[in-house]
Amino acid sequence: MTISAQVLTAADFAPFGEVIAADPARAVEINTGYTTRFHALAKVESDADVILSIFRGRVRPLTVAMLERHPLGSQAFMPLGGRNWLVVVASAPRAEVCRAFLCRGDQGVNYHAGVWHHPLLVLDHAQDFLVVDRAGEGTNLDEVFFDRPVDIRV
Amino acid sequence: MTISAQVLTAADFAPFGEVIAADPARAVEINTGYTTRFHALAKVESDADVILSIFRGRVRPLTVAMLERHPLGSQAFMPLGGRNWLVVVASAPRAEVCRAFLCRGDQGVNYHAGVWHHPLLVLDHAQDFLVVDRAGEGTNLDEVFFDRPVDIRV
Repeated sequence: MTISAQVLTAADFAPFGEVIAADPARAVEINTGYTTRFHALAKVESDADVILSIFRGRVRPLTVAMLERHPLGSQAFMPLGGRNWLVVVASAPRAEVCRAFLCRGDQGVNYHAGVWHHPLLVLDHAQDFLVVDRAGEGTNLDEVFFDRPVDIRV
Repeated sequence: MTISAQVLTAADFAPFGEVIAADPARAVEINTGYTTRFHALAKVESDADVILSIFRGRVRPLTVAMLERHPLGSQAFMPLGGRNWLVVVASAPRAEVCRAFLCRGDQGVNYHAGVWHHPLLVLDHAQDFLVVDRAGEGTNLDEVFFDRPVDIRV
């Protein structure tokens, strides 16, 4: 089974979370005009601490053999290297409903709490990402493994 | 009055907040070895919502004529363009105690709640930053203006 990546847009991604990008509709001028603030592009969900981490993603096969979700908090990924990358999400933990999104290097995403997604997928180079997610007690990871992996066509 | 920027280190910046950088001491391997997580480099402080925004900083004179602080929440800045940038903080809202830090393009900072700092300072090019801060009711901005500006030597 193969799925094709589609270009990431806020509208298409809305069921899964927010796109983090410099949307002119969210722009406000601050700092006496020296800064444009693209305001509140995403909202963090958490019942515990919110932490900032860096994820260094390495090149791997573009094959989806499992999905995970974090029921207790959102998780945001923002690329730091300006390179395109890939997001795979699903409305349910089944191979048939996986959707792949090709993200530009200036687009991040914030997965809503509980959204099924594949772990970090870079394309042809390693890339660092700033990650904003929850830390605290409780089980915040569910995983499902597929009998047959899904290949992604970019 | 002129102050010289010093190189940003976690130890020197500790009184003001955290440095967000891929510190090998915080590295854990995840995602079956395809991702290194530099874990919990900073912790968000907020008594209300936590939001993600993008700040587009433009070139401006490297002169400190005011400081601000956010008493109700931390504020993190992570550069997205890989360029060096500048942070100015102070232990009190007075020109004499301002300190300037030269940050690499792979270093962000998280100001603790209530830390006096200058608004975003890029160097010779505009740059976008991911910003993680608080949103909600209440007065979360204090400002002080100096009689005589402080120049920063980089």
